[in-house]
Amino acid sequence: MSILVLVDGWEPAPWVRALQAAMPDERIEAYPDVEDPEAVEYALVWAAQGETLDVFPNLKALFSLGAGVDHLFGGNTLPPVPLARVVDPDLTAWMTEWVVAQVLLHHRQQLQYSQQQRHRNWQVLPQPLAREVQVGLMGLGELGRDAAGLLHKLGFGLRGWSRSPKELDNVTCFYGADGLDEFLSATDILVCLLPLTPETNGLIGRSVFEKLNQSGPLGGPVFINAGRGRIHVETDVVAALQNGVLKAASLDVFEVEPLPQESPLWDLDNVIITPHVAAVSDPRTLSKLIARQVRAHRESRSLEYLVDMTRGY
Amino acid sequence: MSILVLVDGWEPAPWVRALQAAMPDERIEAYPDVEDPEAVEYALVWAAQGETLDVFPNLKALFSLGAGVDHLFGGNTLPPVPLARVVDPDLTAWMTEWVVAQVLLHHRQQLQYSQQQRHRNWQVLPQPLAREVQVGLMGLGELGRDAAGLLHKLGFGLRGWSRSPKELDNVTCFYGADGLDEFLSATDILVCLLPLTPETNGLIGRSVFEKLNQSGPLGGPVFINAGRGRIHVETDVVAALQNGVLKAASLDVFEVEPLPQESPLWDLDNVIITPHVAAVSDPRTLSKLIARQVRAHRESRSLEYLVDMTRGY
Repeated sequence: MSILVLVDGWEPAPWVRALQAAMPDERIEAYPDVEDPEAVEYALVWAAQGETLDVFPNLKALFSLGAGVDHLFGGNTLPPVPLARVVDPDLTAWMTEWVVAQVLLHHRQQLQYSQQQRHRNWQVLPQPLAREVQVGLMGLGELGRDAAGLLHKLGFGLRGWSRSPKELDNVTCFYGADGLDEFLSATDILVCLLPLTPETNGLIGRSVFEKLNQSGPLGGPVFINAGRGRIHVETDVVAALQNGVLKAASLDVFEVEPLPQESPLWDLDNVIITPHVAAVSDPRTLSKLIARQVRAHRESRSLEYLVDMTRGY
Repeated sequence: MSILVLVDGWEPAPWVRALQAAMPDERIEAYPDVEDPEAVEYALVWAAQGETLDVFPNLKALFSLGAGVDHLFGGNTLPPVPLARVVDPDLTAWMTEWVVAQVLLHHRQQLQYSQQQRHRNWQVLPQPLAREVQVGLMGLGELGRDAAGLLHKLGFGLRGWSRSPKELDNVTCFYGADGLDEFLSATDILVCLLPLTPETNGLIGRSVFEKLNQSGPLGGPVFINAGRGRIHVETDVVAALQNGVLKAASLDVFEVEPLPQESPLWDLDNVIITPHVAAVSDPRTLSKLIARQVRAHRESRSLEYLVDMTRGY
């Protein structure tokens, strides 16, 4: 019996160490160094293609190392076993930190003040109150709800949009294709926390940016993407940042990661680029959560945070 | 009877307009255009010297346009009338926004990521959790308490220091000269929200920076000053930023404002400079508060937020 770490693009060693510490009695292996493929019962996966898993006939469950699971749907079919997402409170907290930091940074005009600083220019800019600024959250799951709580404490006006109807305290909620235009029309800072699904792929492009509040208190709308890069249309983001439809943006995710050297985004001074670090999977924390899930499954209790394969999240 | 606006270095017109809107039946005048000095009953003051007020013999009360009142103590004696501070909830919210923005910006290593961005460098930096970082607040008045509330929601560890003993939820509190070293020793991000008084003048310099936690999770301590510039020793701030005793700083206030063109701070890439905008006095909001105070005083009720002249705040 063994538990497999199958992470594409990440160093597996910290995961093996952390899992072994959380489950001292289990055998932990890192792909492709597997002694007996038939002994593999559980697999922790990140960005692995479905076909890779075909050689493990006795898999009982998969755990996705991240809040999103789109990285698993890029390839072929997955084995017919339960797939559970990681819902890590630290990961949620990290995401909220990043979102709140970026919202405040744009609200308090830090890009302009940094530019003034480089020119030794001491100039006070008009500053709206938080309650005069509407933050529009796309995606009202665990991450959206947590960010909304903090942004409300800071006094921002809040609007939310999701696929299906939702109700959140202090958030004016909209849903579906029919609700999108009204949601966008009064949004000053758009924050994307959506999962990547066939429906959200390429959802945020030129027409979305043009529908944002173009006469808001910040002198133009701001786009913040901490969801997935393929939800936005990157050429449209670049164009909107260049022609002023967007005043500024903060992007943690991109259509291709790492962001290619030739991307025009690097040259724009009204965008903040971070290398997909908004919410990072911490092996120490996640291994404890996965140990709990493995124990539950062994004791025939149901897994938490199961992915609905038909919705894709 | 009239109410006088006496603001040095600010444009008085927005104040006159906002006050007139809040008190349509009162006569509002802007210094030095005063029809009858003997008719002036109340004065709203910012950075005015005491002697200027000697020509108004019938003053009944002074209102300081800002949370601090140090700007009034620089000159000669003030008239023997009550002096009330402005405690504006919007001003507190603005200060909390700025402090939270700067704390998050350093916590999430935005200066390093911006530098990487300029070099098209996609590199993930190790990221501590908020609960692994101790924010140390100097000054536990209205502003310190409000910032502490938000920083706690974000998960930061909190320590506080004040002149006299205080108790705050979720904050490990220290006080007085005896408590300073212990407060500093575990502080990773030092936030100054102190008032400027003879006791705090020059309080934060080299020895304070050296006593901060030099082996914390952020790779060095951070100094954030949103109090008053003369609380820090600016040559010591520059030296500490240059020799690595401080990893970085965010400064909204300076010994001399505007920050002189020749200041070496402008050239440092590990400091964020904003032009005293953390908490700005909004004429609209403050005029409503002052109208309430004037009405209370006329009806022989006591003024709120009176300044204790012996403490200086």
